[in-house]
Amino acid sequence: MRASVPSHITGFFSAKRHDDPMKSGSMGCGLTLDLKAITTIEPAEETEIFLNYERSDAPVSRFVVNKLSRSPVRVQTELEMPLGAGFGASGAGALGSAYSLNASFELGMTANQAAAVAHIAEVIYGTGLGDVIAQNIGGLVIRSKAGGPGIGKVDRIPVPPLWINYVVRGPISTKEVLSDPKIMKGINCEGKASLKELLKKPTLKDFMRLSRRFATRTELASNWASDAIEAVESSGGFASMILLGDAVFALGSSDSSQALKEFGAVGTTFISQRGANLD
Amino acid sequence: MRASVPSHITGFFSAKRHDDPMKSGSMGCGLTLDLKAITTIEPAEETEIFLNYERSDAPVSRFVVNKLSRSPVRVQTELEMPLGAGFGASGAGALGSAYSLNASFELGMTANQAAAVAHIAEVIYGTGLGDVIAQNIGGLVIRSKAGGPGIGKVDRIPVPPLWINYVVRGPISTKEVLSDPKIMKGINCEGKASLKELLKKPTLKDFMRLSRRFATRTELASNWASDAIEAVESSGGFASMILLGDAVFALGSSDSSQALKEFGAVGTTFISQRGANLD
Repeated sequence: MRASVPSHITGFFSAKRHDDPMKSGSMGCGLTLDLKAITTIEPAEETEIFLNYERSDAPVSRFVVNKLSRSPVRVQTELEMPLGAGFGASGAGALGSAYSLNASFELGMTANQAAAVAHIAEVIYGTGLGDVIAQNIGGLVIRSKAGGPGIGKVDRIPVPPLWINYVVRGPISTKEVLSDPKIMKGINCEGKASLKELLKKPTLKDFMRLSRRFATRTELASNWASDAIEAVESSGGFASMILLGDAVFALGSSDSSQALKEFGAVGTTFISQRGANLD
Repeated sequence: MRASVPSHITGFFSAKRHDDPMKSGSMGCGLTLDLKAITTIEPAEETEIFLNYERSDAPVSRFVVNKLSRSPVRVQTELEMPLGAGFGASGAGALGSAYSLNASFELGMTANQAAAVAHIAEVIYGTGLGDVIAQNIGGLVIRSKAGGPGIGKVDRIPVPPLWINYVVRGPISTKEVLSDPKIMKGINCEGKASLKELLKKPTLKDFMRLSRRFATRTELASNWASDAIEAVESSGGFASMILLGDAVFALGSSDSSQALKEFGAVGTTFISQRGANLD
């Protein structure tokens, strides 16, 4: 059994904490990308998790495996996306594990039920709040009510499968940011204001504009990221920070690619119009 | 601007009527297929709708065009699916029109908001109750609460993009069935029971089994359709009726294709894992 899950990059967000992980989550808007996590499940002597062909602790995926496997399995996840740079890799691995375990053991869970297990794992380990629910649906996803899959509310802004360019310098610890009350206060205030403004007339352009403003106002962007965003804008393009990573994405064009080149190796992918699925 | 919308074939359903079209809809389960409706919008001297390159009344699409266009347009829909045979062609055309008008005129509607206009059109013209909300999400879609997009509740049973075979003899008038209180009473009772049973452990197999039972018990299947379903079953496969058409679908295999051959030209497609989208 094989499952594919798209990356998810967040443009802006506000977090909501609750004792019940299914009522925890985030509101905001983000984009799923065709850089996928591909997870396969095979019967094994003892349960093992491999990430990009290396044995891994992968606590978020392990939580899901412990919950859903009925006998020992070898779980193998290949990531097309960078790890720890805001692409929702942990959520993608956990979600792919949930889908493929559900299928392998014929557990009879719906998409939302399987995704809920991955969401709970993310919340417990502090690795993400809104990636799983967005990765489960796919596209340019608005999260208008916080919560796990089936409880949180999601909708899409319809967009073509446009090209997206990106550069990555390194990770920002999601856990560290999410657990700092001072940083979170500013994020939550800006995130809510951005969502309110987006919902007036949701378009891709406004998503880019509000994401850019959020990155500036919350001061989450490093100097490197700010310079990269400005370089794209000087070339006439649209860019913002990938939350939460020291990474920048831009609407694809040869100009934006050219502008990003001096900031690192430019990756190119496109918007994924589908969510998690079995292959 | 171009939008693609998958077909939607219903396996079983129950209908809910309400004065507010957004609270009208159906519960049940169905499958979206890669046979698409492709809709393009161009500026024009006067508003015209073309269906498969012929000028058409297309009242459902016209309702959407009247609601959403800001100046005269030529709306052209090409159908890869049969018309009037339970593939949700009217919903697909209306949904594709809504998506492409939303993009063309930069209306800033979300996917659910655009789809709501298509759903309302379907309800008003009596051409469908649950196709649009399912076509908007894609996959093997469970509708667990009736209503338009954003109000009704949908979830998916995760399935791979499996091959589906089908044969079509002709149309059943959706409008006629949906407006006959005696027929609807039996449908609603069976539809609710089927959904309740599916939700216990939602799998593709159970979807096929319950759809088959629904078609038999509601007596909606013609003798031709019943014979075709039985032929597939005799070959070891799974089949049911496409609601609401004189048409049969089967999980793809060379045996099921062989079995269906004597009932008409066998079409082959696969399960669509994505919903409506801009191209």
